Amino acid sequence: MGLMRSWVESANSTGTDFPLNNLPCGAFAVGAGAHCGVAIGAMILDVTRLEADGRIEVEPGAPAVFSGGDWTAFMARGPAVWARLRAALTEMLAEGAPEAETLDAYLVPQAGVRMVLPFTVAEFTDFYAGKHHATNVGTMFRGAENALPANWLSIPIGYNGRASSVMVSGTGVTRPHGQLKGPEDTLPRFAPSARFDFELELGAVVGQPSCGMVSVAEADEMIFGYVLLNDWSARDIQAWEYQPLGPFQSKATATSISPWIVPKAALEPFRVGAPERERALLPYLREPGPMLYDIALEVGLVPEGGAETVIARTNYREMYYSSAQQLAHHTTSGCPMRVGDLMGSGTISGSEAGALGSLLELSWGGQTPLTLETGETRSFLLDGDTVILRGAAQGDGYRVGFGVCTGTILPAGDLPGWATE
Amino acid sequence: MGLMRSWVESANSTGTDFPLNNLPCGAFAVGAGAHCGVAIGAMILDVTRLEADGRIEVEPGAPAVFSGGDWTAFMARGPAVWARLRAALTEMLAEGAPEAETLDAYLVPQAGVRMVLPFTVAEFTDFYAGKHHATNVGTMFRGAENALPANWLSIPIGYNGRASSVMVSGTGVTRPHGQLKGPEDTLPRFAPSARFDFELELGAVVGQPSCGMVSVAEADEMIFGYVLLNDWSARDIQAWEYQPLGPFQSKATATSISPWIVPKAALEPFRVGAPERERALLPYLREPGPMLYDIALEVGLVPEGGAETVIARTNYREMYYSSAQQLAHHTTSGCPMRVGDLMGSGTISGSEAGALGSLLELSWGGQTPLTLETGETRSFLLDGDTVILRGAAQGDGYRVGFGVCTGTILPAGDLPGWATE
Repeated sequence: MGLMRSWVESANSTGTDFPLNNLPCGAFAVGAGAHCGVAIGAMILDVTRLEADGRIEVEPGAPAVFSGGDWTAFMARGPAVWARLRAALTEMLAEGAPEAETLDAYLVPQAGVRMVLPFTVAEFTDFYAGKHHATNVGTMFRGAENALPANWLSIPIGYNGRASSVMVSGTGVTRPHGQLKGPEDTLPRFAPSARFDFELELGAVVGQPSCGMVSVAEADEMIFGYVLLNDWSARDIQAWEYQPLGPFQSKATATSISPWIVPKAALEPFRVGAPERERALLPYLREPGPMLYDIALEVGLVPEGGAETVIARTNYREMYYSSAQQLAHHTTSGCPMRVGDLMGSGTISGSEAGALGSLLELSWGGQTPLTLETGETRSFLLDGDTVILRGAAQGDGYRVGFGVCTGTILPAGDLPGWATE
Repeated sequence: MGLMRSWVESANSTGTDFPLNNLPCGAFAVGAGAHCGVAIGAMILDVTRLEADGRIEVEPGAPAVFSGGDWTAFMARGPAVWARLRAALTEMLAEGAPEAETLDAYLVPQAGVRMVLPFTVAEFTDFYAGKHHATNVGTMFRGAENALPANWLSIPIGYNGRASSVMVSGTGVTRPHGQLKGPEDTLPRFAPSARFDFELELGAVVGQPSCGMVSVAEADEMIFGYVLLNDWSARDIQAWEYQPLGPFQSKATATSISPWIVPKAALEPFRVGAPERERALLPYLREPGPMLYDIALEVGLVPEGGAETVIARTNYREMYYSSAQQLAHHTTSGCPMRVGDLMGSGTISGSEAGALGSLLELSWGGQTPLTLETGETRSFLLDGDTVILRGAAQGDGYRVGFGVCTGTILPAGDLPGWATE
C-alpha cells in the first residue's frame, strides 16, 4: 500500500508524520476543557465537534463518546467501533470526498493549539523487554556475570509505575530530590538527583478490559494503539532504593507520552517478528504471528539555547517481548486490566554504540560522556536540557509517525526548612 | 475519654467494634448502585439518604457528595469538612439527641446488606515497614547475612501495587496461575501457585491530593482513615519473578480491604510513638509526634467446613515507619498523590512466634507447618480456606474496631488450551 491521498494538502507531503494512512488520536485544550481530534497533515480534525453536530455517529443510538475531551470513552466501545470510525474518517478525508468543503470548518491548525493527555491513564506498568538494555544496565548495576537476570528469557518482567505522574509531551520535568548514597558513602543524603536520565520507550494503550487470563492473540485485540514514552529515571535514587522491591521514587517524577496515539490499525503494514528465542517460551507467551513493528526511533538532546544533537537511533523491532506478550503475562495472576491502562515497552536499545536508549548506557554510567554538537559534554541531563523522542514507520512514499515527545528539565526547587537539618 | 453513649443501643455494648466513638465510613449495595453509611453498633446510618433529604449538609451551598455511592467525593472536600460531618453525626447519634425518633428510618441493619468498596482506589502502593517481617522474609529469600536490605533503616521502601485488584472483604480470591521454578528446576513451568499466602496489613486511605514534596506533618493531615488490608501473595511466583524489578504478578491477584474506613479522628486517642531508631532518620522523615497507633490485630484461619484457629496476634505499633512517613517519602520525587490513593503498611509481624503476619513466616517457608484446631496442618493456604483479619484499638470500656476483612480461596480454573503444550 502506498500513500493514501487526502484533500488536506499537507497530509500528502512526504515530510509529514500524519498522512491519511495514520489518523492518530489526540486531544487539545479548548477553553477550560478539551476536544478530541485526529491529526491529518498539519491540521487536526475536531471529532468532538463532528460528533456534537451529528456529522459522525460512533455507534447508532448510543450516547456521545467525545464530549469528555479524551479518547477513553471511545476506546471502551471496542475494536468494531474503532474500525468503524476509522473507516468513516478515512472516507471523509480522502481526496475527492464530497464532504471536503463542509469539513474545512472542523480543521484546526496543530500549530495553534495546546495538546493535553489523549486518554485517562488508569494504571501504568513499565516493562524491561529490551535485551540489549537489560544486559547493559545489569552489567553496570550488578556486574557482567549477573547482567541478564535468570528469569529474563522466560518472563517479560515489569513493575507497576505511577499513573499520576504520566504527563503529555511539552510539560516541564522538575529534577527530583531523593535519597542518594554513592558507593563511598556510609550514609545516604537527601539532595537533588545528579544522575537524571531519559528512557526511550514505546507505550501501548490498553483499550479493552479483561478479567482473568488472556492469550497473546486476545491481548493484541485489547490494544488500541501506541505512543512514544519517556520514562524519566533518577539513576542515583534508583541505585540506592531498588533492592529488593524494585524502582519506586526513581521513576515517579514524570513519564512523558506523545500527544498522539497511533492506532494499531495504522501500524498493521509494519508488523515484524521477534528475534529468535534463546529459550523456548512457555505456551501462554507464544506469538500467533509477528507482534512487533518496524518503527525507527531517535532521541535528540537540545541544551538550553543550543542546537540539537541526535544522540541515539534505534528501532522498536529490537525488543524481545511485544506489548501483547507483556499484556498476556500481566493477566496471568488474574490481575484485572482496565480501559486506559498504559504499558511501557522498556527501554529500546540496539546492539550498537549509537543505538542506546538512555544516557546511562550512552555514557556508560558517566564513564564516557557524550560530546554534543555544541561542543558540550553530557553524562546525565543538565537543567535546561530538552529531550526529544521521535518515531515513525516508513512506508512506500509515506510514513506513519508519532510526532514528538519532548520534555525540558527544570531545576530542583529549594528544599523546605523541614527537609534540612 | 470513655464510651460515648448513643441512642442506638447496640452501639453501647462492650462487644461492638462500632461505638459512637468510631463512626467508620462504608458503602453498601442498594439496587444497582450503592449508598454511603457510617456504622453505629449493629446498624448503618444511611448518609446518602440523609444528604438527599437535606438532613445533613456537608458544605453549605456545595453539590451533593454522597450521591456517587462512595466516600471519594466527600474525602476530596478536605479535613475541615471531615471534622464538620463527624461532629454533626456524633451529635445526632448521641444519647438523648432530639433527632433520635426521626433518624430511626435512616438506620439499616448491617446483617441485611452487602458491603461494597468504600472509595474509588486511585492507585495502590504497598510498603515494607515491619522490621520483624522484613528480617524474616529477607532471611528466607536471601539468607541471614543479607536479611535486612542496606537501605531499610533509611528508606520506608515500597513498590507500586495494582489498584484494579483491590476488592472488598468477602470477595472470593481465585488461586492464581503463574511461572513457578523451584530451586531444583532448570526451567520454570506454568501452574497454579502452591504457596499462596496472606499478609496482615493496615491500609492508609489518602483523602487529599498533593503536588510536590510534603512533610510528615502535612502527610498526616492528608490521611482520611485506615482499613484492614490483606495483601494476598503467591510466594512461589514471587521468588522467581521479583529480581530485579520487585513483586509484580505475585501480588496482583487480589488485595482485600475491610468495608469500613476507620477515620483518623477516631484513632487519635490511641497514638503511640515509633520504636527507637537504630540509624538517625534524614530530616524529611522525622516525626512531629507519635505517628503510630496501638491497634491490636489478629488473624483467623478457617478450613472449609471447619472451626477457626487464631494463628497470629500482633499490634500495629510494631511498625518501624508510619503511614505519614511513607506518604512523605512517596512525594519526594515530585510524584503527585491523589484522593483515593491507598497505601499498605507492610506486613505487621511482632517479634514472637505467634505474632507473625504471614504463613511464609508462621510456617518458616513451609518447614514448620502450623497445626490448626481441627488437627489439620498448613504451610500455605488450601482451596476453601478463609482468612479473617480483625483489628481494634482498646479504650476505657469501649473499643474502636475495624470489623473484619475476610477472603476465601477459590480453586484455580482449568488452564485454557493455548496455555498448555
